[in-house]
Amino acid sequence: MEKVKKIREGDVRTATRVIRNLEDNIPEAKTTIKHIFPYTGKAHVIGVTGSPGAGKSTLIDSIIASYREKGKTVGVLLVDPTSPFTGGAILGDRIRLQRHTEDPGVFVRSLATRGALGGLSKAVGDAIHVLDVMGKDVVIVETVGTGQQEVEIINHAHTVIVVLIPGMGDEIQAIKAGIMEIADIFIINKADREGTGKLYRDIMMMLDMAGFSKNDWRPPILRVESIFVPETFKEKVKEVSETIQRHYDYLLERGLLGNRVRRKTLHELNEALRACILEPILNRLVADGELERMADRCLKKETDPYSCAEEVAARCLKDPAA
Amino acid sequence: MEKVKKIREGDVRTATRVIRNLEDNIPEAKTTIKHIFPYTGKAHVIGVTGSPGAGKSTLIDSIIASYREKGKTVGVLLVDPTSPFTGGAILGDRIRLQRHTEDPGVFVRSLATRGALGGLSKAVGDAIHVLDVMGKDVVIVETVGTGQQEVEIINHAHTVIVVLIPGMGDEIQAIKAGIMEIADIFIINKADREGTGKLYRDIMMMLDMAGFSKNDWRPPILRVESIFVPETFKEKVKEVSETIQRHYDYLLERGLLGNRVRRKTLHELNEALRACILEPILNRLVADGELERMADRCLKKETDPYSCAEEVAARCLKDPAA
Repeated sequence: MEKVKKIREGDVRTATRVIRNLEDNIPEAKTTIKHIFPYTGKAHVIGVTGSPGAGKSTLIDSIIASYREKGKTVGVLLVDPTSPFTGGAILGDRIRLQRHTEDPGVFVRSLATRGALGGLSKAVGDAIHVLDVMGKDVVIVETVGTGQQEVEIINHAHTVIVVLIPGMGDEIQAIKAGIMEIADIFIINKADREGTGKLYRDIMMMLDMAGFSKNDWRPPILRVESIFVPETFKEKVKEVSETIQRHYDYLLERGLLGNRVRRKTLHELNEALRACILEPILNRLVADGELERMADRCLKKETDPYSCAEEVAARCLKDPAA
Repeated sequence: MEKVKKIREGDVRTATRVIRNLEDNIPEAKTTIKHIFPYTGKAHVIGVTGSPGAGKSTLIDSIIASYREKGKTVGVLLVDPTSPFTGGAILGDRIRLQRHTEDPGVFVRSLATRGALGGLSKAVGDAIHVLDVMGKDVVIVETVGTGQQEVEIINHAHTVIVVLIPGMGDEIQAIKAGIMEIADIFIINKADREGTGKLYRDIMMMLDMAGFSKNDWRPPILRVESIFVPETFKEKVKEVSETIQRHYDYLLERGLLGNRVRRKTLHELNEALRACILEPILNRLVADGELERMADRCLKKETDPYSCAEEVAARCLKDPAA
């Protein structure tokens, strides 16, 4: 398949087109992913997540630079979990990462999906495959926010970095607890701000409670001062890069990378099942106008959503669920 | 059905048990929802969303108080889109809303779902039905964050309030754009802080660009000073309550409430289809160990997730999707 060859050669135009098709959920993209799948699994996939305004883009920009200094190629996916209206975010990120746009060793793409029917995490997983097969040594995936969907997206990564900033109040602490189980590295960004000590102690306490054993990877907490303190910033970014490498080495040495890849594959299977089973049924119900007719009947209280769904299940499934 | 009668009488223990079953995705809960569905549709459902630390809980606390002054009963759902690890958030919110716990006219429940297989939005929609059928005049749904999932949750509301705070940087502006299309009321909270003017102008500009016509509801932007300015705060909360009522009256007068309810019903149908079609198939694949075997084959590159999903679809669906 010509397209597979092109992607394997790192052709930017082909890769971009495939990623665009993934966003638009075009069936052709699925075929491409099937064909490139045997060549996947070489890149180190790094997920970066955190609250809006936590300074993820600046950090990623510096991490890219430090990989490039070592001669490694980098792919970046900027995931936009909101709607098509967020052109601003995409543009903003692109501007922040533009110092790398001239560098053929760096490939940056934004990713958003339209419609509310999920599928973003699937598109992210597939887009990672594209960057991986292009031959990028490292693939960085950035997501904004800390909701359920972000956790799903981050499931595609081997190393997960959670970026926090001091002074966000109680609520952020709580959310932080929610992603505790998936974090491999914590970064307290803008650590020249007030509240850094408290945040550090809070994370430490939670890690203590999590009860890591001696052989476990206990997520380190790195403090990175604002970019406006250039000397310290550069030093700290070096520390971040080294810690990422240390985590990858840990996974390799302990034979744990396989577990991560397995988790990622199970997640992909779930998403593929959705795409191949539920989506076609939904599409037909919409095309036939039946979904609207079911809504009418629910609104008149003649039926309810569950009864409607059970009718559809009985009609579509060979062996209806008990 | 005894349970339906109890819920309609406002029995707190029965309602709590049903909501717990919804969280745990116990089939019995589905049956209860089917039975109470004919009695739904009376409450005014208000969604409140915004970034962590935006002060949503304090605001909701005051909105509850203002409804209680008018003799209206209030149900509150605090939605936790993260994991079971977030006991902290739930506890924190409960503490913040505890001045109402002695009041039988207020019913507050937290809602979280376990597992990564979605379903939170469905549980929220169903839990709203429970509070509605209990006879609450107003149901307030709070979600943290502004991701895709939060947008889905907020789809269950008639009136959507987006709470923002000044000084969160560019990224929050972009996210704000993402939920622009669903916001009915904007609240700039902690409006005594620096950056309020800029945030106000940014939202105004975006609303200008959205091109509302004369008869449209153009989302008003309310500025609420911090609770530490008590006189102004109380005055502003009154303004918020009046604006919420004004939006509801607008929907009623223009006959637009039906559109909202329809959107909510379509959303519920989508979720019910997932629950009745995809979930049983996934559960069987997990129980049979087949999902794990498929993962093994993918890891050995003998196959890929899409090909596996297509096999399952061919086996389970009567009329396989073209």
